[in-house]
Amino acid sequence: MMTASREPEQVIRVLYEFPKGVDPERQGKLLALGQTVGSLVPGMAAQIADYQGLLDSVDALPDGRGQAWVRYPAHNVSGDLGSLLVMILGKYSLAGPAKIRKLELPTAYGTRGRWGFDGIARLTGVTGRPLFMGIFKPALGLSPDDLACILRDVGEAGLDLIKDDEILPDTPASTALSRIKACRPVLEEIERTQKRTMLYAVTLSGRADKLLDSARRLREAGANAYLLSPFAYGFSIMEALASHPDTNLPIFAHPAMAGALGGSPDYGFDMSVLLGTLMVHGGADAVLYPTNAGNLPISSDTETRIRETLSQAGLAPVPSAGVHPGALPRFLPDRNTRIILNAGTGIMDHPQGPAAGVRAFHEAWLRWGEEEPFSPESLPEGPLKAAVLKWGH
Amino acid sequence: MMTASREPEQVIRVLYEFPKGVDPERQGKLLALGQTVGSLVPGMAAQIADYQGLLDSVDALPDGRGQAWVRYPAHNVSGDLGSLLVMILGKYSLAGPAKIRKLELPTAYGTRGRWGFDGIARLTGVTGRPLFMGIFKPALGLSPDDLACILRDVGEAGLDLIKDDEILPDTPASTALSRIKACRPVLEEIERTQKRTMLYAVTLSGRADKLLDSARRLREAGANAYLLSPFAYGFSIMEALASHPDTNLPIFAHPAMAGALGGSPDYGFDMSVLLGTLMVHGGADAVLYPTNAGNLPISSDTETRIRETLSQAGLAPVPSAGVHPGALPRFLPDRNTRIILNAGTGIMDHPQGPAAGVRAFHEAWLRWGEEEPFSPESLPEGPLKAAVLKWGH
Repeated sequence: MMTASREPEQVIRVLYEFPKGVDPERQGKLLALGQTVGSLVPGMAAQIADYQGLLDSVDALPDGRGQAWVRYPAHNVSGDLGSLLVMILGKYSLAGPAKIRKLELPTAYGTRGRWGFDGIARLTGVTGRPLFMGIFKPALGLSPDDLACILRDVGEAGLDLIKDDEILPDTPASTALSRIKACRPVLEEIERTQKRTMLYAVTLSGRADKLLDSARRLREAGANAYLLSPFAYGFSIMEALASHPDTNLPIFAHPAMAGALGGSPDYGFDMSVLLGTLMVHGGADAVLYPTNAGNLPISSDTETRIRETLSQAGLAPVPSAGVHPGALPRFLPDRNTRIILNAGTGIMDHPQGPAAGVRAFHEAWLRWGEEEPFSPESLPEGPLKAAVLKWGH
Repeated sequence: MMTASREPEQVIRVLYEFPKGVDPERQGKLLALGQTVGSLVPGMAAQIADYQGLLDSVDALPDGRGQAWVRYPAHNVSGDLGSLLVMILGKYSLAGPAKIRKLELPTAYGTRGRWGFDGIARLTGVTGRPLFMGIFKPALGLSPDDLACILRDVGEAGLDLIKDDEILPDTPASTALSRIKACRPVLEEIERTQKRTMLYAVTLSGRADKLLDSARRLREAGANAYLLSPFAYGFSIMEALASHPDTNLPIFAHPAMAGALGGSPDYGFDMSVLLGTLMVHGGADAVLYPTNAGNLPISSDTETRIRETLSQAGLAPVPSAGVHPGALPRFLPDRNTRIILNAGTGIMDHPQGPAAGVRAFHEAWLRWGEEEPFSPESLPEGPLKAAVLKWGH
């Protein structure tokens, strides 16, 4: 068949998994045909052959589930994630259970982030340690001036990055622009006094044209990073942000809604495809995901696959959700320095205040480097001990 | 609690369903808090009270599953579907199974389509019968000139609308613009000779900024309808298309990927939310969905809820997938005339050719109006009989 001879750069390969009782060969063939030329029209075989998908192989898993590798010609789609998703799952998703376990794309497919981990680290000037990121809390109800106060506090204490909560969009009481206008002087003050750049990833929201306009205006007003939830807004938005010269800032991608697409064992996508592969080819620079050592249910294996997919492509992995200072050895067992550790309440709800939360992370990193224990009785008085007494280690 | 006194127009209500063994009260409270203010910060109760969600009620279903109604202040989000999805499911989707069964929005929330069923029917000039829509097949491999030939054929036979397959994006061999340029003369010929407007919904694809530019250029080149897959491209795109004066054409929304978000019993959304509520508030004019009488698995109850949600809001329901002429009485048991019947192979693969496929639909509608039987032996020779002999009735 024609696709057998294609170069890898021209082929998109997808591993589908089906529940017990579903014939993977039959479904794989249906996908290869139905998601490409649609139907085999008599007399048109030659004309459509170049567009037809191909079932590569099938496999039966020990638990009775089945898998099928299907390959598609890359010229069937238009180099974006939207047409890719329509092809690889699209209409078929309505036909019955199928979960995409793996997705292999040509290296240059889609849109690649312009910053990645190295670009973000270079901006902040941090070397030799993980970056520490905070989240403004509570998510809603703080005025832009409240945020500026918190920013000064955690900035003086040495926080590298901060972000809005993803559930803080443009609201009547707090537009992204009003937040940047209130916080920009503080970022400049940190730049001046500490000779370093602190990044603030501001939440983008709104319909596509307004969101993209807003992103441009935010950058003009001094924003230095974006936060976007691509599963809620669409990868097409992230691709546009990551391509246009007027929005050339690091993009932090939030996993909001990923569970709706990846939580089921039978439908949607493996989390490593959602938070790994699609992010790499969809323009993200840094990707937030739940960490197994945190407070959301994710397996260590899944976390590893997400992190490795991101790291191998040069993106910044951002383990999140339940991150607190005392457990730093569990969050970074390998002392990975090419990572951004993201803590919300783990900084903002520190018993001695947010600045102490930041100091506790720095203290924890140094202590972990010296292989000192984290038990409360072994810790000197200070921010880390207070954190461990509140959240454990 | 503050939200108890809100006007309905200020409140967003969501019915969540949880699997057996999950406590709906606990999860409902977690959602009301975690998806709004995030955490209860001591001393800030007054400041954040106005943003906090509220658990309205819980219910236990006979099968052991649980439900919870949660209400959120509408001013927590920015009037678009992106921030709405982040709030009502977003991060919580990673916490465990939860399926949104119902979504109640303020009437004016979001973006409403500018055309709806009435606008589309007015454009085509059809009254007193359902509209008939075809799909170019095979989906890939036809040149723009091939499409123009097919268009002339089905247009002369009286087809009201046609669309690209959703899996035909901009490809090197067939851009949307090349298709419109090839087909526009045929549409004008139909306008001239038949004194009616035939609509051709062309597939939009690409990253957000390019897609929106392309939509504008397509309209300038004579496109008269758009086809978009909002679950793959993002509702933010559809909202932009439905708002901007330069893209003021009927939007046909395709359900590609809806199964990934709605197929699982435990995760994501009810199909009537995906293909009903979100479409109504996301700017669609016409919505394709699988019909229970077709070849994809969907319950009659679900189809009814989708169709009624769309119809009540003035949108055009477009039952699809496995639609063929002989089964018209099953597709339209109530002789609904405010609907668009969409057939792909049911027209294009008619044994006497696509034009006969179109004629078979018209013949079927007349016959169904006269309550004549559809059994092959009762049918006169002609397109309908040929269709029934091939696909049944």
